[in-house]
Amino acid sequence: MDNQDALKHHCGVVGIFSEGEANIPEKLFYSLFSLQHRGQESAGIAYNKQGRIVAYKDLGMVSEVLARYLNGSRPSTVGIGHVRYSTQGGNRIENAQPICVACNKGRIALAHNGNISNSESLREELSREGSIFQATTDTELILHLLARSQAAGFTGALKETLSRLQGAYSLVMIHNQNLLAIRDPHGFRPLYLGRRGSLTVIASETCALEIQNITDYRMIKPGEMVVVGKQGIKSEILFDGEPRLGQCIFELIYFARPDSLVFDESVYLARKRMGAALARGDRDLLSGRDSGGCIVVPVPTSGNAAAIGYAQESGLSFEQGLTRNHYVGRSFIMPTTTQRELAVRMKLHPVKEIIRGREIFLVDDSLVRGTTSKILVSLLKESGAKAVHLRLSSPEIKWPCYFGIDIPTRSELISNSLSPDEIAATTGAATVRFIPLESLKACVSLPQAYCTGCFNGDYPSPPPPNGTHNSGCD
Amino acid sequence: MDNQDALKHHCGVVGIFSEGEANIPEKLFYSLFSLQHRGQESAGIAYNKQGRIVAYKDLGMVSEVLARYLNGSRPSTVGIGHVRYSTQGGNRIENAQPICVACNKGRIALAHNGNISNSESLREELSREGSIFQATTDTELILHLLARSQAAGFTGALKETLSRLQGAYSLVMIHNQNLLAIRDPHGFRPLYLGRRGSLTVIASETCALEIQNITDYRMIKPGEMVVVGKQGIKSEILFDGEPRLGQCIFELIYFARPDSLVFDESVYLARKRMGAALARGDRDLLSGRDSGGCIVVPVPTSGNAAAIGYAQESGLSFEQGLTRNHYVGRSFIMPTTTQRELAVRMKLHPVKEIIRGREIFLVDDSLVRGTTSKILVSLLKESGAKAVHLRLSSPEIKWPCYFGIDIPTRSELISNSLSPDEIAATTGAATVRFIPLESLKACVSLPQAYCTGCFNGDYPSPPPPNGTHNSGCD
Amino acid sequence: MDNQDALKHHCGVVGIFSEGEANIPEKLFYSLFSLQHRGQESAGIAYNKQGRIVAYKDLGMVSEVLARYLNGSRPSTVGIGHVRYSTQGGNRIENAQPICVACNKGRIALAHNGNISNSESLREELSREGSIFQATTDTELILHLLARSQAAGFTGALKETLSRLQGAYSLVMIHNQNLLAIRDPHGFRPLYLGRRGSLTVIASETCALEIQNITDYRMIKPGEMVVVGKQGIKSEILFDGEPRLGQCIFELIYFARPDSLVFDESVYLARKRMGAALARGDRDLLSGRDSGGCIVVPVPTSGNAAAIGYAQESGLSFEQGLTRNHYVGRSFIMPTTTQRELAVRMKLHPVKEIIRGREIFLVDDSLVRGTTSKILVSLLKESGAKAVHLRLSSPEIKWPCYFGIDIPTRSELISNSLSPDEIAATTGAATVRFIPLESLKACVSLPQAYCTGCFNGDYPSPPPPNGTHNSGCD
Amino acid sequence: MDNQDALKHHCGVVGIFSEGEANIPEKLFYSLFSLQHRGQESAGIAYNKQGRIVAYKDLGMVSEVLARYLNGSRPSTVGIGHVRYSTQGGNRIENAQPICVACNKGRIALAHNGNISNSESLREELSREGSIFQATTDTELILHLLARSQAAGFTGALKETLSRLQGAYSLVMIHNQNLLAIRDPHGFRPLYLGRRGSLTVIASETCALEIQNITDYRMIKPGEMVVVGKQGIKSEILFDGEPRLGQCIFELIYFARPDSLVFDESVYLARKRMGAALARGDRDLLSGRDSGGCIVVPVPTSGNAAAIGYAQESGLSFEQGLTRNHYVGRSFIMPTTTQRELAVRMKLHPVKEIIRGREIFLVDDSLVRGTTSKILVSLLKESGAKAVHLRLSSPEIKWPCYFGIDIPTRSELISNSLSPDEIAATTGAATVRFIPLESLKACVSLPQAYCTGCFNGDYPSPPPPNGTHNSGCD
Repeated sequence: MDNQDALKHHCGVVGIFSEGEANIPEKLFYSLFSLQHRGQESAGIAYNKQGRIVAYKDLGMVSEVLARYLNGSRPSTVGIGHVRYSTQGGNRIENAQPICVACNKGRIALAHNGNISNSESLREELSREGSIFQATTDTELILHLLARSQAAGFTGALKETLSRLQGAYSLVMIHNQNLLAIRDPHGFRPLYLGRRGSLTVIASETCALEIQNITDYRMIKPGEMVVVGKQGIKSEILFDGEPRLGQCIFELIYFARPDSLVFDESVYLARKRMGAALARGDRDLLSGRDSGGCIVVPVPTSGNAAAIGYAQESGLSFEQGLTRNHYVGRSFIMPTTTQRELAVRMKLHPVKEIIRGREIFLVDDSLVRGTTSKILVSLLKESGAKAVHLRLSSPEIKWPCYFGIDIPTRSELISNSLSPDEIAATTGAATVRFIPLESLKACVSLPQAYCTGCFNGDYPSPPPPNGTHNSGCD
Repeated sequence: MDNQDALKHHCGVVGIFSEGEANIPEKLFYSLFSLQHRGQESAGIAYNKQGRIVAYKDLGMVSEVLARYLNGSRPSTVGIGHVRYSTQGGNRIENAQPICVACNKGRIALAHNGNISNSESLREELSREGSIFQATTDTELILHLLARSQAAGFTGALKETLSRLQGAYSLVMIHNQNLLAIRDPHGFRPLYLGRRGSLTVIASETCALEIQNITDYRMIKPGEMVVVGKQGIKSEILFDGEPRLGQCIFELIYFARPDSLVFDESVYLARKRMGAALARGDRDLLSGRDSGGCIVVPVPTSGNAAAIGYAQESGLSFEQGLTRNHYVGRSFIMPTTTQRELAVRMKLHPVKEIIRGREIFLVDDSLVRGTTSKILVSLLKESGAKAVHLRLSSPEIKWPCYFGIDIPTRSELISNSLSPDEIAATTGAATVRFIPLESLKACVSLPQAYCTGCFNGDYPSPPPPNGTHNSGCD
Repeated sequence: MDNQDALKHHCGVVGIFSEGEANIPEKLFYSLFSLQHRGQESAGIAYNKQGRIVAYKDLGMVSEVLARYLNGSRPSTVGIGHVRYSTQGGNRIENAQPICVACNKGRIALAHNGNISNSESLREELSREGSIFQATTDTELILHLLARSQAAGFTGALKETLSRLQGAYSLVMIHNQNLLAIRDPHGFRPLYLGRRGSLTVIASETCALEIQNITDYRMIKPGEMVVVGKQGIKSEILFDGEPRLGQCIFELIYFARPDSLVFDESVYLARKRMGAALARGDRDLLSGRDSGGCIVVPVPTSGNAAAIGYAQESGLSFEQGLTRNHYVGRSFIMPTTTQRELAVRMKLHPVKEIIRGREIFLVDDSLVRGTTSKILVSLLKESGAKAVHLRLSSPEIKWPCYFGIDIPTRSELISNSLSPDEIAATTGAATVRFIPLESLKACVSLPQAYCTGCFNGDYPSPPPPNGTHNSGCD
Repeated sequence: MDNQDALKHHCGVVGIFSEGEANIPEKLFYSLFSLQHRGQESAGIAYNKQGRIVAYKDLGMVSEVLARYLNGSRPSTVGIGHVRYSTQGGNRIENAQPICVACNKGRIALAHNGNISNSESLREELSREGSIFQATTDTELILHLLARSQAAGFTGALKETLSRLQGAYSLVMIHNQNLLAIRDPHGFRPLYLGRRGSLTVIASETCALEIQNITDYRMIKPGEMVVVGKQGIKSEILFDGEPRLGQCIFELIYFARPDSLVFDESVYLARKRMGAALARGDRDLLSGRDSGGCIVVPVPTSGNAAAIGYAQESGLSFEQGLTRNHYVGRSFIMPTTTQRELAVRMKLHPVKEIIRGREIFLVDDSLVRGTTSKILVSLLKESGAKAVHLRLSSPEIKWPCYFGIDIPTRSELISNSLSPDEIAATTGAATVRFIPLESLKACVSLPQAYCTGCFNGDYPSPPPPNGTHNSGCD
């Protein structure tokens, strides 16, 4: 369920290059708007204007912060944009992106999606050498490294910089009127490149290319750098060897938009497969049950596709038994925590007439703290549900993420303290079942290419020495 | 499809009475928030405060206009609220409601959902007699009539006033610290009454009662007046004879929230039945077709329930083949009409991987001008759909509405110039089918209790003499 | 002193007519901006646009509410505007002006400066006859009377309406594409008419004509109606007999801008004469005093001109011993009343170096409750003043105003409970002296043409029967 | 005249330390509000909160940006604040101050008033060594130097840093929960230190101490560093030798508030002396003139004190012949430059009745481009002035400033192209006279302690090698 009890969204990035002049800021607006689900805390763009880079960013939604760019034309040839996720505290304008700096490599604008896992030690090292930090973003850190690099040439400095970084980064950058895009060698975060005519667009998800009428696109490969400039598009793999891949499977489970491709997978179809896998796991329970008395209900909107997959596999009816009020958004904030239940009910409300007397297979994407699920089970039972079976299209979340997801501390994760049966007892659900990790892996084409560290603690890149994780992402 | 090409939403009303003092404004906020889908142009409340009536209203959404009422307590015993629908022009603060007046009947606050069909002649008459009109709402008109009535007693004046009105009105009113609610004798617009402990809530839809934890409610009957005061609840049927009923069937097709009851029907189940009826009408076409190659896709979110009904009846798979971007809202306005297609694509985007190679049964609620449908069919075909069959859960709209829906002029209605086959040819759909009126009627318990004037020109209350219709609603 | 302890400002009105089309809304902006000192609560305009009257008004300052009218051209031929004064409570959008209505006399927009003293009985009568009141302004009342009048012709109805009104009114009106302006027969509030080329402007003060480059103007006479239309300008005296004149002398003392003419008097020169009269009254005290040790300090900015007059007459040095912080405005509101002293000090601060060791003749316009004066005397003494002599350019205020000034209740007026000597004792001033009423009268050309009711209770028009006064003005 | 034709205001700084916890942010608000005249572009504060430094800053006025700090208590012991001047372009949030960084010296918040004249070469050097620049302020530059310093101890690093800086800087800083304040060895910008009980306040002008009820204060000396901490207040002169003093005489002429002390001079009295000096320079002209026909009129409000001084010295009458409309502020921006005259007239308007038939001695602080003066002379003559004598309380401005004033390029300065007589001919003034530099110097106690570079090109600190000047200030 996409709310404050959920995992925090990632950031999203976009880069646009046009061979001739085009209204780059307006195009950035549309692509960022398509990536709004990846971050609602802040939005920003940077673009070249007569040889200079100008930037504008602020706390707020794309449609608020960047509305000015829908008026009038701003001829430009290259630009980048960023949306940053929403947290409850710590919304600092200093952390909004892109970050633009002047340095000995020239003027650079940079936007980042990911999380540098060795940022703490790098920060200490840089600090020791006299760097100053105005923000807490890894983006600033990367720029410091780049400026300090003595390697020959800009690409040399870039390579040296990246060789220092561990963790997750999908970067877009303006330098010397070129657009650069880089994906870390593990490929934690998605990044796509597409073209239409003289226009090149790079973005976290394909939905941000589609909005530009771009249907001809490809994934930027883990470890790949793409440079888009007047001389065309150049690609280079920056890393030697074969680093272990670690694409974030939560992009497929929850973060990405269902009409996007990420990691060359259709998000919608992957979710349907997860739902089907959940249904297959319920064969014991479903056999011999009156299928007329059972319905599949998604927790909208993140559970929709999995619920459809579950229904199709199980043969049970799919019903939108919970209505989502789409007017609930950032502007509405409940005054007190005691009104948590009211807050949930303002957003999600049962359709009693379809719930009453039925067994409900309630499909959600994941359980974090479990507070919302408890309220939802209770709402459904008050509406007359005979029983509520809670089904999660992710395995139990037990470990921190060091690569860009803001997972609560281990002690707050319900699956570290309660077994599924205990969760059922606590929430009032008849049964609670998670998709097994192996079943989840079977839902994607290249299971070995994914990071599943939050489920089993097995990370493709070393976690920070002291085991703490950076609570933010860039 | 819920957009600018759609029928305009109605208004919504709410009234709350508490035996002891309660934070009435806050409660009004929550109920109005639940009715936000009925009107986004303006919001307002009025409530008693130490014997006086205070009011606050403005252009904007509930969460913006009324946010102040979430802070602090405002003890009161009675209040009413209103949301008004969104139009592109003519948003005048003067038309926001409730309207509060002082007159010889005391202080009155009134909010109205509906449309008085003889307002023009009443306005002329009142004007002749020296009334002044500051707004163009029927609400002001009703108050003029009430103030001018010489009938004995407030109820007498009210009866005399209502006897002059033709058309649709669901009213809530504060007078003399009582809460009054009245529904016109045809029952055009819905109105529900519920209680929990010392709290009485009246609202257009039951979702606005449920948010107050009220599950014990009943429909206010056509022609009924309810007075809620310190002496309890009194009910009276104000009209003699048996006026022809004319409940607006579009409330079920499109306007109301799926988790609401209106006219004692579950909106969700009624819509599912409409979808099923559409599927039955397609038996000719479906028999012998490869059901694996056909999918049912709703135009979200208004087509969802009908599409589920269609899928269940037909046995075809239900798929969310169009993703809705929920960040598209009032704040985002496209600068030019030539970007109409872009505007649609920013809001609704195909999930190509499920569309490709399939025949799509696209389920929407109604066709008004048909411009959006044309774009959607085109988007689906570009995404690889083999064919698109457009299915509408309302019959062809051919006539104006004089009772509260803002239907374009007859010449703008696509069904007045094109047959379904011609619409198919124009939009690129393989086939276009509307639910037949008789099938639609079979989806509700009391078919004879509904107005179907916009389909067949048969109105339960006389249309205005000159045939023009009031473009607004209250 | 112009602050919350002061008398409340009046409203201001403006009307503009152009023979050909002109950007009337923009012109209204500039004139209203010049009248901003007459009202900061709300601002609004109405103007004709292709035969219709459109209006826009809101709570707030001219530069906020009407900023939209500085962009683009809105061709029109006639318009009116209004600013309403600021009160601490009761800012209701419903009371903003102009008020535009449709009635049997056609469409009318009306704006009013003044106060109808028999409004209560008129309201009762109208209410009895079935009128409804949405606001508490006299403007609505006047429109009710006008609509109900059966007299022949619009002018006839207007005359009948005005014959019912007692009290103060300077009106501007749009009717039938004409601009009308009317001043009550006592002439309580100022109103000027000027022309330049094809442009006619009517406004409360000449500063609003000067900003239109109009230097050829005349006072509209008490009881005069001016109609400006395509046929030119027609003038008519609407009232028979010779009503007693009652021009508000506080316009000269405090309300009007120093660069304006009102009542054919220069505000600046009248204030200088008041200051000089105060100085003459101090001859006893000044003779034999060391003039080097005494300085004249105004309470800025309302006391400036009188202080200059005092200094010139007395031969003492004029010094700006109190600095006014011009960034103190509406946006800055102190959180608690205990910080009253801080609030005063943020706005007015002594120039210690000129105060220290001096006797200060502190010149202010009037004493209402006296709270601010007490703080100022204390601030000056802390800054080293040897003594503070408080001089007021108005006599003691002891009576209510029924004609447009918002004077506190009699018991709150310091001069009803304390003599000047007692005020001196309370505030810490060495002496406190008010200008004698006869001296004040000697400062204007036609003393008998003024109302001095707030000083001596002698009103040119009967006060309301029950003696209560309307706390607002229009 | 304080408008867009004037010299740009400086920035202002404030620092507050409390021995026990106090509501530091609220106190910063009040002091910054008192310094609002020194900068209207942006406002910001930083303060310690449980060991951390939190900051908030934005574009806008103190009352807008910092209003939040008037609600609730935020216990803290140390804080700093900054207001930045207003320019027409280049308002970048990145340049708002204070700047807070984490570095190897710990966490530091810094705010700066002044201009580093060798910033360009320092920036090049730092850039070469790998520093990145996110803003164009000198403040960021100073922090880079500080972080990179290898000198022993924080004070050592600070001294090394300052030894690299040329130009003007009055700094306030939070470090290690101490408040530091430093004034450059030339003393270009003012800085005062005061105490009351456990509270220490440091600010650009004494008005910001007075608002805290602090009357016991002293100037921080050129080259002095003050450290305020739990151990009390320590002072140290950081520079050897006796650097040439260069206090900015324009602080006295125009920038500072008249109720402030800067450089141990009363601003008000200094301005009066300048006016008196101008009057003495006019003896030739005044002798034999009819003093009744001549009046002294200030251009409000910056010319007020000098005009009073002129009037007292000459014996002519002081009159406020130009009324200033105090509602003209940031919110009102004229749409087109052709409306320049209208813009001036909206702000300043003649009192015709006092102007007519008189010779006007119009006293302003300085002439920059001369455009406004031309309009004012014309306005006065249209109002009937027999002649207008323009008097300036500064000498002719002919040279750039490298130390914190935003003076237009030399070619834009009217005094570089026109002699006083030519200016008279251009503006329509009868005569134009500037205060001679020697007379100006005679108005202050320590003439040799001032920089008069903008008048004669004689700078106390070397200008940048290429002679260009930084257009901004910090």
